[in-house]
Amino acid sequence: MQEQALVILSGGQDSTTCLYWAKKRFDVKNIEAVTFDYGQRHKIEISCAQQIAESNNISHHIIPINSFESLGQNSLTGSKSEFDDGQYRNLPKTFVPGRNLIFLTFAASLAWQKKINHLVIGTSQTDYSGYPDCRENTIEAMEKTLNLGLDYAIKIHAPLMHLSKSETVVLAAELGAMDAMAYTHTCYKGEQPPCQQCEACKLREKGFINAGFEDPLLN
Amino acid sequence: MQEQALVILSGGQDSTTCLYWAKKRFDVKNIEAVTFDYGQRHKIEISCAQQIAESNNISHHIIPINSFESLGQNSLTGSKSEFDDGQYRNLPKTFVPGRNLIFLTFAASLAWQKKINHLVIGTSQTDYSGYPDCRENTIEAMEKTLNLGLDYAIKIHAPLMHLSKSETVVLAAELGAMDAMAYTHTCYKGEQPPCQQCEACKLREKGFINAGFEDPLLN
Repeated sequence: MQEQALVILSGGQDSTTCLYWAKKRFDVKNIEAVTFDYGQRHKIEISCAQQIAESNNISHHIIPINSFESLGQNSLTGSKSEFDDGQYRNLPKTFVPGRNLIFLTFAASLAWQKKINHLVIGTSQTDYSGYPDCRENTIEAMEKTLNLGLDYAIKIHAPLMHLSKSETVVLAAELGAMDAMAYTHTCYKGEQPPCQQCEACKLREKGFINAGFEDPLLN
Repeated sequence: MQEQALVILSGGQDSTTCLYWAKKRFDVKNIEAVTFDYGQRHKIEISCAQQIAESNNISHHIIPINSFESLGQNSLTGSKSEFDDGQYRNLPKTFVPGRNLIFLTFAASLAWQKKINHLVIGTSQTDYSGYPDCRENTIEAMEKTLNLGLDYAIKIHAPLMHLSKSETVVLAAELGAMDAMAYTHTCYKGEQPPCQQCEACKLREKGFINAGFEDPLLN
């Protein structure tokens, strides 16, 4: 049986690059994608993910998660507070504690059901914005936990782990993902066209400038 | 500052015993409890948990999780299928893949928000019903993952890990938790009085008989 992969596709620049990375490693008919509808302020990224999956003929799952709001305030899912990308307890206010761990566990659960053994996620510890669950040691520990907890072989691929934002842009170009960038969403405020003011927009802009590419989203 | 603990309280026999275990180790005013409303067929356990927390003056959180049904069928949360505690891929059909990992991650996220460093969970690998995420190596790997992923000190206590069901009953008696057993819920079918036919009911019955106690729930 051929190896199958499940890509965690947020609809952003990084996870879209990961989808194209997966297309190089796996037969496209063996790739599926999963997007989480978790109350994100930038909900528009869900339809971006849908569009990107569809245009690549990738089977796409949307999993709802209604838990984060009950867990406490953060600036990314909190509907009550104004958007704020300042700091709180030495972490960005956009930090949703455990978000990537939850995503990986639900993705692994879906993979178990569908007999898929490979997960692909777009986390990077180079430009990780202060989110500890993007780091390689966290992802490695999570992989071990999932293998034990599901009693099932799960391999987590994080192809952007050691790339800077601009190196990710270069990789996207090499993988033929640049056209798809026009359909991705990055802005934390959920604005379209992007606000170009929030940390996520600024990080994206810097990446494209340093890589020497124009951002298809802005043209 | 005194140490604080968050008990994952399902409203069942084991997690209630863990709440009483926590009361011996932590000041009762420093204990909180969390229950997950995840679409379980035996939803009645949520009000059991509420009642047990309230009667112990423990602050109680209920966190909704609407994700499991989208992840695929299992017999514990599937509303479409009949209840079935048979086997599927060498695991019980009541296995919800990754359930305890999700519970621990959300609990840790809540603990992070509330500056709590200790989690207490009632998993046991002795009578673990074939659920791999109840085993000690899974819990240890999860603890490491949470410490890294939240960049925060989380200690997971699983005081029932090496106890058989009957030893858990004896422990409950020693901890003064036996009266509270009358308010716990175990039956997978969600029946009250319990069906006494499902695997969960049978395991509970065997535990009480072997420990030489009458089950307060049945009297």
